[in-house]
Amino acid sequence: MAELANVSVATVSYVLSGRDRPVAAETRQRVLDAARQLGYTPNQAARSLRKRRTQRVCLVLSTFGGVPSDERLATDLHEMADARGYSVVSLAVYSEARAKAAIEALRGGIADGALINVNGDHLAHDLLSGLAATGLPMVVLSNESGLDGCDVVRTPETQACAEAVEHLLATGRRRIAYMAHRYEVYRDRLVGRLLGCTTALERHGVTERIVTGGADDRVAAYQTATELLSSPDRPDAIFAASDRAAISAIWAARDLGLSVPGDVAIVGVGNIDEGLISNPQLSTVGPLRHDYTDVVRLLFDRLQAEEPPPAREIVRSWTFVRRGSS
Amino acid sequence: MAELANVSVATVSYVLSGRDRPVAAETRQRVLDAARQLGYTPNQAARSLRKRRTQRVCLVLSTFGGVPSDERLATDLHEMADARGYSVVSLAVYSEARAKAAIEALRGGIADGALINVNGDHLAHDLLSGLAATGLPMVVLSNESGLDGCDVVRTPETQACAEAVEHLLATGRRRIAYMAHRYEVYRDRLVGRLLGCTTALERHGVTERIVTGGADDRVAAYQTATELLSSPDRPDAIFAASDRAAISAIWAARDLGLSVPGDVAIVGVGNIDEGLISNPQLSTVGPLRHDYTDVVRLLFDRLQAEEPPPAREIVRSWTFVRRGSS
Repeated sequence: MAELANVSVATVSYVLSGRDRPVAAETRQRVLDAARQLGYTPNQAARSLRKRRTQRVCLVLSTFGGVPSDERLATDLHEMADARGYSVVSLAVYSEARAKAAIEALRGGIADGALINVNGDHLAHDLLSGLAATGLPMVVLSNESGLDGCDVVRTPETQACAEAVEHLLATGRRRIAYMAHRYEVYRDRLVGRLLGCTTALERHGVTERIVTGGADDRVAAYQTATELLSSPDRPDAIFAASDRAAISAIWAARDLGLSVPGDVAIVGVGNIDEGLISNPQLSTVGPLRHDYTDVVRLLFDRLQAEEPPPAREIVRSWTFVRRGSS
Repeated sequence: MAELANVSVATVSYVLSGRDRPVAAETRQRVLDAARQLGYTPNQAARSLRKRRTQRVCLVLSTFGGVPSDERLATDLHEMADARGYSVVSLAVYSEARAKAAIEALRGGIADGALINVNGDHLAHDLLSGLAATGLPMVVLSNESGLDGCDVVRTPETQACAEAVEHLLATGRRRIAYMAHRYEVYRDRLVGRLLGCTTALERHGVTERIVTGGADDRVAAYQTATELLSSPDRPDAIFAASDRAAISAIWAARDLGLSVPGDVAIVGVGNIDEGLISNPQLSTVGPLRHDYTDVVRLLFDRLQAEEPPPAREIVRSWTFVRRGSS
């Protein structure tokens, strides 16, 4: 390249490394033209070593897609990153091994900051606090306590789900089946949506517990709902931990010739738009507006701060929305 | 750290850098213990600069999820990467700016190899060939020609979609509406699924073209199908470019009191499991088995090869599956 640009090797190095060394503008241009001609891209590893910046943010989720709220979060993050000249990489954490790999990648500097929304136990809070202690700007969506050094976004899903079940009880339902996410069933204690459901049932002295899987997957939800609704002591309500599962349950009921909500009331979680095209329309709990810009802004505030700002907390607003299915 | 381990700074450097220098096992252990105690993680940038390896592969897709085949591809990639000690990062390319950022990240060494499945025009083939020319091991899912230096995976979707439309014509349908993906509508020429549909119609002298959007989104598909099926000259068949859209079309027809396939035949693309729980079951074109391990294996073969192997091509197997909806 030095030959092509007709300058010394040292000059090429000064220009391409961006180090402060006086190089005439015309010489600099000659080097850059030669670099382009040779298809030269500054090595990212070398560059990030020097700048300790990647101009990249990392999104850490539990899945590879299919979860509408995660897709919305990803959309808002990408759009706001675009507007600020950042790129986005994503990591999926669904196992201990993946959690370890994600922590390593983030400690190793894969991005300048991270937005983390991981269900279940894989990314324990001490791991996350340890990561935040390295100075990495972080925003974590989590309802559990014990997270230090980063911003935390909380969702009052337990209360909102209790409210939905209170509604089912108030309209006379007693055999209320809960269709859970996998990670809820395998936890060693009740948390989140299942805790909300159970709390409401206890409060009203309902002792029967009908808990099934199925909330992660539309097909599994359809099959599970078909089984529940075909049994002689079928439930009079299904509360599903996702709207997708609840919509499958509506299909299952209709295909069995049952009336919704006459024979069985059905309520979901998430308030996705698809609940408006189901027939009947889906009762649900979730945010009224699907907007994560306030969450994403926390991350860019941290990234752009001169000094690490104090940890902040956002509590998202959730509510029960009654529609035709209950 | 040297103080804590009671060794010289040079020794710490030898041990942590992994360079070949004789250090007693006991001394090495002392340094590693001290490193752990101090929460030291070797800087990834420094490490990758030395090894020129990240032990990471990159998945490049068009979306943030919601596309079942992409989720399957991601699952297979992650599982096979796990088994080989690789981690996975993902990039989403849905605009010119995102394409540029992805190329930069890959040229800059964000991963040791890439698996790329991007719809539309954003990642032009000369960009990809240029990237492959840097020596990056790459596997690209694409039906277009002009890709050099990487493995290519082709899907005979055009022929398979033509076959589906032939079937609709053979069963007497004449007003066949095609519900397209956004990227198909904005292309400057007919490609892929839309090309297959159009080719079959032309072959049978059907001149009417009914093309709408909606295939990207279940709600849009429901609304579009409702409009199509409410019009006085409603189509007698809907061929949707995704099974998700086709399933929404079945709902829309049922909610309008129309019989499927009596009043309107409906066919999708993708052969997702959900087609088996729709009522009636969904006719579709797609792979019989959802398995991308052969595709992922191409990438790891490249990564593990001593010398860059010659470019290979896989043609996936697609077929038309007739079920109750047509």
